[in-house]
Amino acid sequence: MDNFSQQEKDGLYKAIHSRRDVRTHYEQIPISDDVLIRILDAAHHAPSVGFSQPWNFILIKDLETRNKVKASFNEEHERSSKLIDDPKRSTYLSLKLEGIIEAPINLCITYDPTRFGPFVIGRTSISETGVYSVCCAIQNLWLAAKAEGIGVGWVSILSNDDLREILMLPDHIEPIAYLTMGYVTHFEKKPDLERIGWLPRLSLNDVIYFEKWNNENDNNRWKNFQSLLRIKF
Amino acid sequence: MDNFSQQEKDGLYKAIHSRRDVRTHYEQIPISDDVLIRILDAAHHAPSVGFSQPWNFILIKDLETRNKVKASFNEEHERSSKLIDDPKRSTYLSLKLEGIIEAPINLCITYDPTRFGPFVIGRTSISETGVYSVCCAIQNLWLAAKAEGIGVGWVSILSNDDLREILMLPDHIEPIAYLTMGYVTHFEKKPDLERIGWLPRLSLNDVIYFEKWNNENDNNRWKNFQSLLRIKF
Repeated sequence: MDNFSQQEKDGLYKAIHSRRDVRTHYEQIPISDDVLIRILDAAHHAPSVGFSQPWNFILIKDLETRNKVKASFNEEHERSSKLIDDPKRSTYLSLKLEGIIEAPINLCITYDPTRFGPFVIGRTSISETGVYSVCCAIQNLWLAAKAEGIGVGWVSILSNDDLREILMLPDHIEPIAYLTMGYVTHFEKKPDLERIGWLPRLSLNDVIYFEKWNNENDNNRWKNFQSLLRIKF
Repeated sequence: MDNFSQQEKDGLYKAIHSRRDVRTHYEQIPISDDVLIRILDAAHHAPSVGFSQPWNFILIKDLETRNKVKASFNEEHERSSKLIDDPKRSTYLSLKLEGIIEAPINLCITYDPTRFGPFVIGRTSISETGVYSVCCAIQNLWLAAKAEGIGVGWVSILSNDDLREILMLPDHIEPIAYLTMGYVTHFEKKPDLERIGWLPRLSLNDVIYFEKWNNENDNNRWKNFQSLLRIKF
């Protein structure tokens, strides 16, 4: 039972490669409770440092709340646009970067550093690993949603201070992600920013090193791997 | 083609639920170049803020390097054990928390904040989102490895300063994860720390809130969902 059939493998890789960051094409079709629970349970089964499971999920439908979050986006969006000049600035301002109101459900995922603490196995040298666990949960959620036909968008042009106030987060709780989710008419084949030519996808070959950072020598162990990598990517 | 068959969905959920943090049971069976590339390519197709793809993967086989990393683990492990008292301390010291030497491949995943920067779309308000992207890549890698029958362990009891020196990381590069990977004799059914009773798995019901943090009122919108959640978890 441990082994994966080819179809099971394909399913995982399909989710990974077809997952998109969705800000448009949302439909007003309700997500059934069963499906939503399955997606959240996938997130809850992420790895966590010292099995601390330091996440919370705040499900949001209330329009008043979403309007407040949208106002925070608008402010941060305007502010950030001043960091660049035209023509980049105009392109940036023309991009659709959130679907807060259009998506039927919003979701804030938070980190609780006090969960099962203060001594958490594996978090004693690198304290950031607690937050890293929450990010792994977010990726699980994103993939499960994709498999269910549900688009997820990560809205990161926001003020965390605003989020804390809007969602009444206690001081020790850290907001990590604000997501929008809902069924969509379709998923784009490529990420939006690749599609419009904002940035190119890097070749896999460009982001892999061997034995040490940027080490071109001493790679006898990896010679065949490197040749194959260059052929494939 | 966008829709997932039941088997494809099952494959994704199987990877999510059967993935383990692996420190034991490693076998000295080489991972084929094709499989390793597939796993790394899954990581490379993670979401990234502003499509910045800010990750690098350093593949490590060299035993001298691994011995140095193991020495860093030993030092941090000893140091961290002094943070707790017996009987917790003895249990902690008896746990197998890394497979640095036993696993045939080690892998350091790093974050490059300068990639396609300084202006990265979506990173202007919350700068940590760059690191969050790297964590999503790690989770993709972990799931793909599981589907391929390969165990992955995240070693976080390490000094990042040691890692920087050992792997010759430039000052601007941040190590995010040090992983061990290899085929294993078997995967445990439950996480080690749950299995030995160190910590319980939380109920999904315990980590979900509605509309606002810890809000028990105003949940008419979520009444059916809450009932189902309580029945299932």
